[in-house]
Amino acid sequence: MKKVGVVMGSDSDLKVVNKAIDVLKEYSVPYEVHIYSAHRTPQQAREFSLNVRKNGFGVIIAAAGMAAHLAGALAANTTLPVIGIPVKSANFDGMDALLSTVMMPSGIPVATVAVDGAKNAALLAVEMLAIEDEQLAQRLEQARSEAAQAVLEKDKKAQEL
Amino acid sequence: MKKVGVVMGSDSDLKVVNKAIDVLKEYSVPYEVHIYSAHRTPQQAREFSLNVRKNGFGVIIAAAGMAAHLAGALAANTTLPVIGIPVKSANFDGMDALLSTVMMPSGIPVATVAVDGAKNAALLAVEMLAIEDEQLAQRLEQARSEAAQAVLEKDKKAQEL
Amino acid sequence: MKKVGVVMGSDSDLKVVNKAIDVLKEYSVPYEVHIYSAHRTPQQAREFSLNVRKNGFGVIIAAAGMAAHLAGALAANTTLPVIGIPVKSANFDGMDALLSTVMMPSGIPVATVAVDGAKNAALLAVEMLAIEDEQLAQRLEQARSEAAQAVLEKDKKAQEL
Amino acid sequence: MKKVGVVMGSDSDLKVVNKAIDVLKEYSVPYEVHIYSAHRTPQQAREFSLNVRKNGFGVIIAAAGMAAHLAGALAANTTLPVIGIPVKSANFDGMDALLSTVMMPSGIPVATVAVDGAKNAALLAVEMLAIEDEQLAQRLEQARSEAAQAVLEKDKKAQEL
Amino acid sequence: MKKVGVVMGSDSDLKVVNKAIDVLKEYSVPYEVHIYSAHRTPQQAREFSLNVRKNGFGVIIAAAGMAAHLAGALAANTTLPVIGIPVKSANFDGMDALLSTVMMPSGIPVATVAVDGAKNAALLAVEMLAIEDEQLAQRLEQARSEAAQAVLEKDKKAQEL
Amino acid sequence: MKKVGVVMGSDSDLKVVNKAIDVLKEYSVPYEVHIYSAHRTPQQAREFSLNVRKNGFGVIIAAAGMAAHLAGALAANTTLPVIGIPVKSANFDGMDALLSTVMMPSGIPVATVAVDGAKNAALLAVEMLAIEDEQLAQRLEQARSEAAQAVLEKDKKAQEL
Amino acid sequence: MKKVGVVMGSDSDLKVVNKAIDVLKEYSVPYEVHIYSAHRTPQQAREFSLNVRKNGFGVIIAAAGMAAHLAGALAANTTLPVIGIPVKSANFDGMDALLSTVMMPSGIPVATVAVDGAKNAALLAVEMLAIEDEQLAQRLEQARSEAAQAVLEKDKKAQEL
Amino acid sequence: MKKVGVVMGSDSDLKVVNKAIDVLKEYSVPYEVHIYSAHRTPQQAREFSLNVRKNGFGVIIAAAGMAAHLAGALAANTTLPVIGIPVKSANFDGMDALLSTVMMPSGIPVATVAVDGAKNAALLAVEMLAIEDEQLAQRLEQARSEAAQAVLEKDKKAQEL
Repeated sequence: MKKVGVVMGSDSDLKVVNKAIDVLKEYSVPYEVHIYSAHRTPQQAREFSLNVRKNGFGVIIAAAGMAAHLAGALAANTTLPVIGIPVKSANFDGMDALLSTVMMPSGIPVATVAVDGAKNAALLAVEMLAIEDEQLAQRLEQARSEAAQAVLEKDKKAQEL
Repeated sequence: MKKVGVVMGSDSDLKVVNKAIDVLKEYSVPYEVHIYSAHRTPQQAREFSLNVRKNGFGVIIAAAGMAAHLAGALAANTTLPVIGIPVKSANFDGMDALLSTVMMPSGIPVATVAVDGAKNAALLAVEMLAIEDEQLAQRLEQARSEAAQAVLEKDKKAQEL
Repeated sequence: MKKVGVVMGSDSDLKVVNKAIDVLKEYSVPYEVHIYSAHRTPQQAREFSLNVRKNGFGVIIAAAGMAAHLAGALAANTTLPVIGIPVKSANFDGMDALLSTVMMPSGIPVATVAVDGAKNAALLAVEMLAIEDEQLAQRLEQARSEAAQAVLEKDKKAQEL
Repeated sequence: MKKVGVVMGSDSDLKVVNKAIDVLKEYSVPYEVHIYSAHRTPQQAREFSLNVRKNGFGVIIAAAGMAAHLAGALAANTTLPVIGIPVKSANFDGMDALLSTVMMPSGIPVATVAVDGAKNAALLAVEMLAIEDEQLAQRLEQARSEAAQAVLEKDKKAQEL
Repeated sequence: MKKVGVVMGSDSDLKVVNKAIDVLKEYSVPYEVHIYSAHRTPQQAREFSLNVRKNGFGVIIAAAGMAAHLAGALAANTTLPVIGIPVKSANFDGMDALLSTVMMPSGIPVATVAVDGAKNAALLAVEMLAIEDEQLAQRLEQARSEAAQAVLEKDKKAQEL
Repeated sequence: MKKVGVVMGSDSDLKVVNKAIDVLKEYSVPYEVHIYSAHRTPQQAREFSLNVRKNGFGVIIAAAGMAAHLAGALAANTTLPVIGIPVKSANFDGMDALLSTVMMPSGIPVATVAVDGAKNAALLAVEMLAIEDEQLAQRLEQARSEAAQAVLEKDKKAQEL
Repeated sequence: MKKVGVVMGSDSDLKVVNKAIDVLKEYSVPYEVHIYSAHRTPQQAREFSLNVRKNGFGVIIAAAGMAAHLAGALAANTTLPVIGIPVKSANFDGMDALLSTVMMPSGIPVATVAVDGAKNAALLAVEMLAIEDEQLAQRLEQARSEAAQAVLEKDKKAQEL
Repeated sequence: MKKVGVVMGSDSDLKVVNKAIDVLKEYSVPYEVHIYSAHRTPQQAREFSLNVRKNGFGVIIAAAGMAAHLAGALAANTTLPVIGIPVKSANFDGMDALLSTVMMPSGIPVATVAVDGAKNAALLAVEMLAIEDEQLAQRLEQARSEAAQAVLEKDKKAQEL
């Protein structure tokens, strides 16, 4: 199976990104975690992204805050799908990161999830890998059923209110 | 090749969505276009999304404005990747559609692109299909090179300013 | 008397929704509480909303956060009035939920109250039921008088400042 | 049948409010139109709202722009449901009117619809009157079916794209 | 000397308003404090504002949060200058109150100060009363000098950094 | 009678400011118009504001756009009340000017009106001058009555809709 | 004299950037214009910025819209001062570009000017070059005087209003 | 070497500004710290800025919150580059300060950094001084290398996740 690259701009993003890693583990999807900054280590971010396809990656997840250029910077060097997680920093509840991640110019898409939406970023990566992987698709469906079941059990309790 | 489903909430979104269709044609990716509204035709939207995988789709693109629920409503019924295009309507420059599309709760991701970013939505869909399709990947790379070349030619003219 | 359906998208919304339940109890209006998610249990949300009128409901209240589709998803399947409570989540002080709830397209209204405005949502439901219920209307008027009286007593104390 | 009061803060709101009047005519719901400003004619706005219940009204619709106090000002004097239409003025795409209308304090609800959402305001009023009016409810359901049908016909054409 | 009326919409605004009262005391300007809600006690708010000029007031200060209609509601009934203090509530950092207070329609001005800007509201009231009161004007000038002096002393310490 | 100083930051603000001048003419309030920029002519703006009281001014109106410092810059040098008109420029519908004008620090108030609210700025100035001027107060009351009457006449026509 | 590098992300930014070029010509400051996109020609943008110091540049100006990464991407590869011009695109009045440009993480500053503020970007570049260039500084001072004079002449006309 | 002037509007800004001072110390760049308020000590702020060039300053840094006029007020009196730090105050996460600082009118630029971005403000000042100072430039490059190295070491640890 192709690997998922999980890149974050700073180790302070790790508390958010960990939820993505948990999902990838849960689905036994191979992954590689990196800390590359679009601004502090542009060369490494570039080299990483130039070689992702030949290094066996299928999807890249990038998490960054503030003027969050990381996802776009990686997307500029690969045609693998890049998923952007806007990370909430000190200000604006992550609106700066959201706009910096999602408002990409024509030609270089970034698949953006909610602010701090690391779990969904990983699920989206798994969904992409599952397009051609029946088994993985079934496990996604299974997880959806279980999540629905969990809501329905809470619904039962709520009915007693 | 798996098909791309292109769904919009209203025929007024067509002027935006057409740019996505053009890209899919350009890459010879099979697609199907639908107008299903999460609010006006919830049943058809639901039935469509429940059956996308078995009907040969690989990726779904959904375009909607205002309280743009369409992408999320489709994503609720499938584990295929769903790409959301927030469409700018009469107010807020599409911020209502952007937040309604991207701020999905944990468990149901929507891969959101820029407001009115239909071209990038289609490119993202192609990128997803190209994860396991070497040839399609090469054509994406080729298009990137050409786009870069076009910028560089403009750069030459700009240097004369 | 017709029942009020109180639906929330997640049990984490309960701390907000409880204020609505308290009002309904106070007015002895029959109600039913449910946890249905537009995204995690779309089928149950749909079935519930398709049958509300014949199941004796008069008004539906729906509370959800983030890309808050719940109220709109229920409103899509019923012509009973649906009241939406945008719930404040981790980001944007509930602006995402407010816009996702209130900016409904033509044809499918949602009666939106303030962010976390569960008390007002329930009062609005009671007001709707009181259109044709003189007695209930009188109790609403009574409560208004008492609230005004409470303010006036605080005003007396304030005058000593 | 109870009447719907349609109040606007200025005759410049009429271009928006007309869509509400059209819906009320379509459903043969009796209505009365007024121009009362919360700021320029506070006394008349007050007297009108103090007497709506005894004057045969069932629901009030109020449309205003900028610091849109009208809906709240009417709601302060009646326990009939008040529906607020935030009207887009010169600035902020109606965000000023939206927040001024929807962010009501506990105790005095306003059922807010989208910016310039006059059609939905009227539909919401009809829905409220239809809670206890089977026939009106059926006509609402009928209109929904027709709207769905219209979308499906557009879908057919879209499939040819 | 004319009195300053200090009105707040709820006793929860008192923690903000107290800073205004302190300033009025400091300048020995007579004042009267009231809690009147535009929504919960509209009649009292109206009666108060209809009679402010003849009751010896010169300026009115009104503090309210959320859909902050109080200042506008008072301004609608008097041609005395009304100063609005937008109070920060649970959401939007007071942006809802700011827009509800400042975006008044033509004809009914409200002199708006910063969110929670109670001290400045009172200073502004004193400045208005000082237009024709040389002595009061001198005390304002004096306070300005002292404030400048305090900054300059802090500047001296800062120069050692 | 004391004069009203009307200052704008650029002659491009004149189209907005003219509405203020019209009001001052209507009330026969003496005024002086200036173009002083807080940034381009800081010295003249300063000298003007340092001398306003002794030069017979009673109130200052300042209109500016973008990072609208003018009102605050004048207020820094006088204890006369300064009214700020945030002027809408190329971006943000005047939100930049609104926040730059209204969010003044403690000690230096600016009485802010709506974006482009020049008419209200002038009315507010007249209201301030009318605190101690019975006759001017009566004319303000008179204008209010006439404005109310105009609305009521429009209301009569609206009732025919 | 060191050169100013003027880089824009797309030739559609030229209508904004031209105002910067005019200023540089006016001050006879040598400059070089380029179109490099952080996303479409990342390699050229990188190479350019890696070599700016040794190629005789003193300051870099970068203009881009939407998720405006260009200024940050250049700043990542040089310690020359980089000035960012957020360009207004189709949405949000340039707020997306402003936040993407100004909210840079610690360590990699971008000197941001107003949305579409190309003239100021160039003036800022000239100011930087003038730190050690007495003559250039004098011409800046001269231009300031002339600008002030122009305002004062407009002031004279305004006084006749 | 030319000095850097570090000015803040209030001693409450010191907790932010200290990070700038630390950077200047680190690079052994001479500096002078002042507390001057554009509103409370306009005269001193003016005198300071009128004389910065002749007093040996090369760059000015100004930090202020709310309607943050300080940077603009200093820039109005000097053609030295002025760097503005928008400081986050009680509301809006510093958006008021950001817009008040960055949206300067044509002719008077302020080089704006991120909200509370004091470290970057100082680095930007050093970069400006390093345009003509090879040695300082080398130390900036050195610091960049070290910062990159620190990220790469964190990357190594991250790869073990």
